[in-house]
Amino acid sequence: MPNDSAIGIFDSGLGGLCAVRELSDLLPCENIIYFGDTGRVPYGTKSRETIRKYTNEDACFLLSHGVKAILAACGTVSSNAIEVISDITDIPVFGVVNDAAKAAYNASKTKRIGVIGTQATINSNIFKRKIEAIDDKAVVLQSACPLFVPLVEYGFTDEGDEITRLACEKYLSHFRGEVDTLIMGCTHFPIIKNAIEKALPDVTLINPAKEAVKTMAEALREKDLLSKSGKHGTIRYFVSDDPAGFSASAEIFLGKKGSIIAEKTNVALS
Amino acid sequence: MPNDSAIGIFDSGLGGLCAVRELSDLLPCENIIYFGDTGRVPYGTKSRETIRKYTNEDACFLLSHGVKAILAACGTVSSNAIEVISDITDIPVFGVVNDAAKAAYNASKTKRIGVIGTQATINSNIFKRKIEAIDDKAVVLQSACPLFVPLVEYGFTDEGDEITRLACEKYLSHFRGEVDTLIMGCTHFPIIKNAIEKALPDVTLINPAKEAVKTMAEALREKDLLSKSGKHGTIRYFVSDDPAGFSASAEIFLGKKGSIIAEKTNVALS
Repeated sequence: MPNDSAIGIFDSGLGGLCAVRELSDLLPCENIIYFGDTGRVPYGTKSRETIRKYTNEDACFLLSHGVKAILAACGTVSSNAIEVISDITDIPVFGVVNDAAKAAYNASKTKRIGVIGTQATINSNIFKRKIEAIDDKAVVLQSACPLFVPLVEYGFTDEGDEITRLACEKYLSHFRGEVDTLIMGCTHFPIIKNAIEKALPDVTLINPAKEAVKTMAEALREKDLLSKSGKHGTIRYFVSDDPAGFSASAEIFLGKKGSIIAEKTNVALS
Repeated sequence: MPNDSAIGIFDSGLGGLCAVRELSDLLPCENIIYFGDTGRVPYGTKSRETIRKYTNEDACFLLSHGVKAILAACGTVSSNAIEVISDITDIPVFGVVNDAAKAAYNASKTKRIGVIGTQATINSNIFKRKIEAIDDKAVVLQSACPLFVPLVEYGFTDEGDEITRLACEKYLSHFRGEVDTLIMGCTHFPIIKNAIEKALPDVTLINPAKEAVKTMAEALREKDLLSKSGKHGTIRYFVSDDPAGFSASAEIFLGKKGSIIAEKTNVALS
């Protein structure tokens, strides 16, 4: 596998662009191929069987582009289907669960840790199981926060937005005084990090995409798979629905203004 | 086509169950087959091309069950893809647009009419065009209310829910004093009718599923296609994702308590 092959990142939609942002900040010379399954988003409310079928198709698309590693930048996929990818390829595969669990455990002083995510992620108990595997005395409290995803996607992201504040209050108030660390177990959630912080001011927030990218960088360095080009890498964006409007979403998740073009694939239409 | 063939109703998800409720109230002897494409919900944020492909597959599924008529109980499908169905069958096909436009025009004294729906429905301008085709002097004001769908699906439906009240205020306040009639152009919206009414207390609300079912009943009567069994009809429910949890949604949309079972299809996995 040549060092200048791209790193593949995918997500059920565009939330995984947060991971693209983290990766290109940390490893600016890497080429990246991003696939967002916008034709079938969201995965978080769908069944395990369906999530696994879609994951297989998403990974096959990235593999067809000769990627040297895959990051499933989606809490739902990482919780329900990560081994579906390892079953079909020998390249390194990363999710957004294991490293976040470790980082949360290390950050917590009380070993009382909260987890928020989509319904499917919470139903899977994956973060809870990973933390309890590190320390079976750790206490893990979980809550599904399904409304956070549309709040981000429909633009309720302004600091001080009253609807987002109320949603944080509804979903998060029971964590207050109960945990000292919280895993934001869905790619969308760091976008409303400020509102989450206001609801839980003394709690350390863990961003799984950031943790996963750190681990991936380390693993590729160890395997001598990092780019040696010395030049800025290129990023290609693919989506399964109409690419129109991609720029606006890219602005939310990549934090970059300006026109960013996505290409259309037929992954979801196969 | 035998009179006791079922009437097919489909939707991108479970919102179309509102139409099942209206139909079985109005024509209790009819057999009904419902299909909810829960594996690919929502359609409202997807492209026209994708919506048309999914519509074709949904209709083919109902046709494979020998239905005598089809109701697309989905604002997004009715706005973007209804002719996709008429192109593949000679049985009567109904959407949730034309009759709602007529009913709104007839109900309005000022001929200033509001329309709310998903982004795709509003982008299509379909209700606006239908009303202007009746009277080109009518004034039609439109607003996408994308957050209403997850608010209904994630249970923010209690009378007096503060988040839903704020969302109504945000999306609807500009209609106040501007229109006297409002089309709830998405199957989910009648579920939060009380909150919409509170935001717009002097406005007549039009429920498109109710209007479509009235028109369908009339058309089937004229074609002598109504059931003559004299017995209560049966209703079969199909979904494309895991049927677990269907009962809870059925409770929201059908307004019936108790265990209602859905069967799984492979429509979205073809």
